Amino acid sequence: MAGSVVSLDNPVFASYAAYAGLASMKMMGMSLVTAYHRLTKNVFMNAEDTSFGNKAGAVVRTDNPDIERVRRLHQNDLENIPPFLVVGFLYVLTKPSSDVAVWHFRAFLACRLLHTACYLGGLQPWRAVFFFAGFATTVSMAVQVVAKGAL
Amino acid sequence: MAGSVVSLDNPVFASYAAYAGLASMKMMGMSLVTAYHRLTKNVFMNAEDTSFGNKAGAVVRTDNPDIERVRRLHQNDLENIPPFLVVGFLYVLTKPSSDVAVWHFRAFLACRLLHTACYLGGLQPWRAVFFFAGFATTVSMAVQVVAKGAL
Amino acid sequence: MAGSVVSLDNPVFASYAAYAGLASMKMMGMSLVTAYHRLTKNVFMNAEDTSFGNKAGAVVRTDNPDIERVRRLHQNDLENIPPFLVVGFLYVLTKPSSDVAVWHFRAFLACRLLHTACYLGGLQPWRAVFFFAGFATTVSMAVQVVAKGAL
Repeated sequence: MAGSVVSLDNPVFASYAAYAGLASMKMMGMSLVTAYHRLTKNVFMNAEDTSFGNKAGAVVRTDNPDIERVRRLHQNDLENIPPFLVVGFLYVLTKPSSDVAVWHFRAFLACRLLHTACYLGGLQPWRAVFFFAGFATTVSMAVQVVAKGAL
Repeated sequence: MAGSVVSLDNPVFASYAAYAGLASMKMMGMSLVTAYHRLTKNVFMNAEDTSFGNKAGAVVRTDNPDIERVRRLHQNDLENIPPFLVVGFLYVLTKPSSDVAVWHFRAFLACRLLHTACYLGGLQPWRAVFFFAGFATTVSMAVQVVAKGAL
Repeated sequence: MAGSVVSLDNPVFASYAAYAGLASMKMMGMSLVTAYHRLTKNVFMNAEDTSFGNKAGAVVRTDNPDIERVRRLHQNDLENIPPFLVVGFLYVLTKPSSDVAVWHFRAFLACRLLHTACYLGGLQPWRAVFFFAGFATTVSMAVQVVAKGAL
């Protein structure tokens, strides 16, 4: 019954799926935060986008601090969440202990949410702490995947 | 036979696989469009790349409007297509109705292709419409994944 | 036994898993290289990050050539490695010949590592050669996935 590992009937896989879905939506949500700031700050990235703003003052600029901060945060998500999504799936296939696996998923998502709060709030060294803790969670899973894989 | 959900013999999975493969190639194709513009505009991103250009006029700049437009479009793909690829897979495992699932995949790819055309053509508000429709398609699947997963 | 294709007991899948894990870690490693350069060059991306530097000279700038080179390389990974991770998985499900599959995975990782070395060393046209060879490896797998999928 090797196939049934990849099934929502497998509690470890069901946990992975839920956290993967939440992490995906969290990352995509950064687009909405960026859009909110663009509309309220009247600052856009393409000339044609200024039609969404207050026409008198809408400008194309890339130096609004609030917008650029969210964009840096979104980029950090792009660097970290897609590898988690794939590595987490492969990690489930290594048949880890259920508790250990679920806490990997929880720790990753918690770190990314706390990283987000710290990035938006400009809080260091906490942002770095949560970045590296989330990073280590993914690396921990990746190491086990490589160890049980075949080169 | 839970395992056989993840098989090209499962029509819903076979549909996901085809659209995932096309969406991946669409995203990667942006690299080729960028390269085309760099070579024809003689504008590069690294000093060593100017050896590919017309040596008399090749320059390193980041302000060519055509190149930067393709790069912004590529970035938008990076923000939206990798989550679709993973979420779409997990959504297949929730055993959705076949028709509903296939139309999610078709809607997503169609939206991204139309978003691409609108971005290259500078067409608003259509670009925003197709962006949000594709975004909503992925979120619709992600919500179902989280609902059937286990936190 | 369709389900058992997605299992570390399947040698092709075990090979995919190992190369996917390595490629993920390689991509994530670019964050560490960037952090190393930021700390040693005393150049940061957010005002609050300067607390990690030598306080007398820490600055927020985006024009340090070493840092920006690593960031361009990281971006290139983001454009190419996530599609490989998903497409490679779907490719395993097309039940390719074991040797052909394993050499696709090896070729991709080797190309990305050589691309990295060439990017850091400023070596053209070799960087372009390895970029396109890795790109072609992913496209080769994607074409087979789409051909065996169902639109």
